[in-house]
Amino acid sequence: MRGSPVSVPDRHSLLLREDRDGVATLTLNRPKARNALSFALLNALRDALAALGEDESVRAVVLAGAGPAFCAGHDLKEMTGYRAESDRGAAKFEELFGLCSGVMMAIPALPQPVIAAVEGVATAAGCQLVASCDLAVAGAEARFATPGVQIGLFCSTPMVALSRNLSRKAAMRMLLTAEMADAQEARRLGLVNDVVEAGGALAAAQALAAGIAGRSAYTVRVGKRTFYEQLEMPLAEAYAQAGRVMTQNMLARAAEEGIDAFLNRKAR
Amino acid sequence: MRGSPVSVPDRHSLLLREDRDGVATLTLNRPKARNALSFALLNALRDALAALGEDESVRAVVLAGAGPAFCAGHDLKEMTGYRAESDRGAAKFEELFGLCSGVMMAIPALPQPVIAAVEGVATAAGCQLVASCDLAVAGAEARFATPGVQIGLFCSTPMVALSRNLSRKAAMRMLLTAEMADAQEARRLGLVNDVVEAGGALAAAQALAAGIAGRSAYTVRVGKRTFYEQLEMPLAEAYAQAGRVMTQNMLARAAEEGIDAFLNRKAR
Amino acid sequence: MRGSPVSVPDRHSLLLREDRDGVATLTLNRPKARNALSFALLNALRDALAALGEDESVRAVVLAGAGPAFCAGHDLKEMTGYRAESDRGAAKFEELFGLCSGVMMAIPALPQPVIAAVEGVATAAGCQLVASCDLAVAGAEARFATPGVQIGLFCSTPMVALSRNLSRKAAMRMLLTAEMADAQEARRLGLVNDVVEAGGALAAAQALAAGIAGRSAYTVRVGKRTFYEQLEMPLAEAYAQAGRVMTQNMLARAAEEGIDAFLNRKAR
Repeated sequence: MRGSPVSVPDRHSLLLREDRDGVATLTLNRPKARNALSFALLNALRDALAALGEDESVRAVVLAGAGPAFCAGHDLKEMTGYRAESDRGAAKFEELFGLCSGVMMAIPALPQPVIAAVEGVATAAGCQLVASCDLAVAGAEARFATPGVQIGLFCSTPMVALSRNLSRKAAMRMLLTAEMADAQEARRLGLVNDVVEAGGALAAAQALAAGIAGRSAYTVRVGKRTFYEQLEMPLAEAYAQAGRVMTQNMLARAAEEGIDAFLNRKAR
Repeated sequence: MRGSPVSVPDRHSLLLREDRDGVATLTLNRPKARNALSFALLNALRDALAALGEDESVRAVVLAGAGPAFCAGHDLKEMTGYRAESDRGAAKFEELFGLCSGVMMAIPALPQPVIAAVEGVATAAGCQLVASCDLAVAGAEARFATPGVQIGLFCSTPMVALSRNLSRKAAMRMLLTAEMADAQEARRLGLVNDVVEAGGALAAAQALAAGIAGRSAYTVRVGKRTFYEQLEMPLAEAYAQAGRVMTQNMLARAAEEGIDAFLNRKAR
Repeated sequence: MRGSPVSVPDRHSLLLREDRDGVATLTLNRPKARNALSFALLNALRDALAALGEDESVRAVVLAGAGPAFCAGHDLKEMTGYRAESDRGAAKFEELFGLCSGVMMAIPALPQPVIAAVEGVATAAGCQLVASCDLAVAGAEARFATPGVQIGLFCSTPMVALSRNLSRKAAMRMLLTAEMADAQEARRLGLVNDVVEAGGALAAAQALAAGIAGRSAYTVRVGKRTFYEQLEMPLAEAYAQAGRVMTQNMLARAAEEGIDAFLNRKAR
């Protein structure tokens, strides 16, 4: 991790956060475990997202992975340990998937846009993390898969996010074959927005985030929230909701000042 | 505008309509304001669409812009004028967005297919117009953006149409970054069907429209209506609805004659 | 049809079924009628799918067409015959479209994945068959269309499946213009997953199917079912459902053994 040591509380923590100029970069920091989503890492993510949601100094968020992989999904070794419990792990598995789904839903629910910066593999719940972000940038050698079917555990929770990014047959292809999609294919399918040179995803995602951080936080927050709200509505209801939001937005200072500045530039 | 002067009632009107061989071409005609959607232009569009919906001589509609831009969205200057009112414009803004959403919804609700012919920029509510059309053709130099975030006014109503054309991350990218998508990118993302040489969009859209105008008006009307109805239904309900429509369609003279002619051609 | 004669009960039947190594290949076998979906063929498909759903020896299904066409849609000649009835065929048409929709819905409802292998034309309800499959492979000379509008009978039931595979404008384009999309265009639009050399679709689809047949049948079944269930739910409900499924899946032997084997491979 680069950046000022002040904003990196503990280089040994599971999740690093570094803030700069309104952009918070969260880095999954279990490189030896390919950033697998253990209970502890998911709890750290949940808490970090909750804190970001309250932090008005942060205008955009980047999510990256330390080491060669973005995220390899759940921590299967930890999960297997719970099989020794009297219910064969049922309660723990339920808790884990509930926690994980909560984290995934917290990303679209966060006021600030979240941009995934993907190098290396993003598999299973790691692929789901990418799909759950608002935007995603991939290095040229990033690869994506939902390979649970290979080990008898279908990627059923990852599919929720995946199938809301990809067309049906493309999502089914990834889920049923476990094949890796390379970065260009992931872009073609709608899983990532941009492909940059290998190793360049973090910088590119931070540049996108910096652009967003330069906008009115109110405007971005209202826009992101309305985006996901209206997606699940029928057309007329979506317009009614978006129309209310536009009227409120017009009355906000950000729009008044922004429009005045725009008209003045044009008049000059 | 080319075509017979009879069908162009007033070259100075905000919205031109020219009919030829069952195809009505509506042209936004505020070229100096880059066809910005003032109250007056939106009212003209609403009225023109309502008239088209009742006009059985029209089988397909093309929507174009006069001058170098397709449509630059709302008329910000006009809107700013309403800030002087006692409620800071709230009532006018609400009326405007309601009117605009009504126009946008009137396009899929129109019995006839509507094809956007885009040259130059289609931004904000102008981009929404394109997204709201059933089909769209772009000249090679057309460009598309939802740049409201730049001036503090998120493109929340445009996103309703945009997010029903593009994948989530692609729509979010346009909304959050305000970046221009060129014509080829707009095609890749699903916002337009075809890209033709610069300056050729109107002719290409009219050719598409002429093809549609040569079909049974009943069949096209029923098909378009059913398309949007079934999109918002669960699968089984969609099939129940479409099945009823197919049975009625089979009993209509258009299908009886069309199928007979088809079978006779095959038999010959 | 290649393969052991034992598994092909009757070379003259309308629908052939050949099983090999857990993969059942269904072949529409009316080549002179371009595999048009007559009542009899639809009944055979319905019965074959019902039988497959109960057959635990089958892990994946391939759907192909005998002769140069995949499937040309409904049997218009047969349908026209019903116009002589006292209700001008209304009852028969209703029965036919209900039967056909039932077959189309039986494909996503089948426990096993279904892969279309398309050579030649797949038009109208034939195109709908492709859209209804979980995956699809096309030979390079395959072509796709929903051309009903040409004969006065809009492809309203095919649109249900088509519009759940393609973007709105792409689906509308196919429905309104009746134009053929070639194999590469069909892949770009999301209607097929892969394009292989002409004549290679069946082998490629069977290879995909063989890969799926090598997985845990339980896992694949649960995954496929959950895929379609969660697609029609709001996000939070989809996650609740998928989370329940994941917990159950973790407790199944397939996952326990698969994860153990995976961890052992990694540890080695």
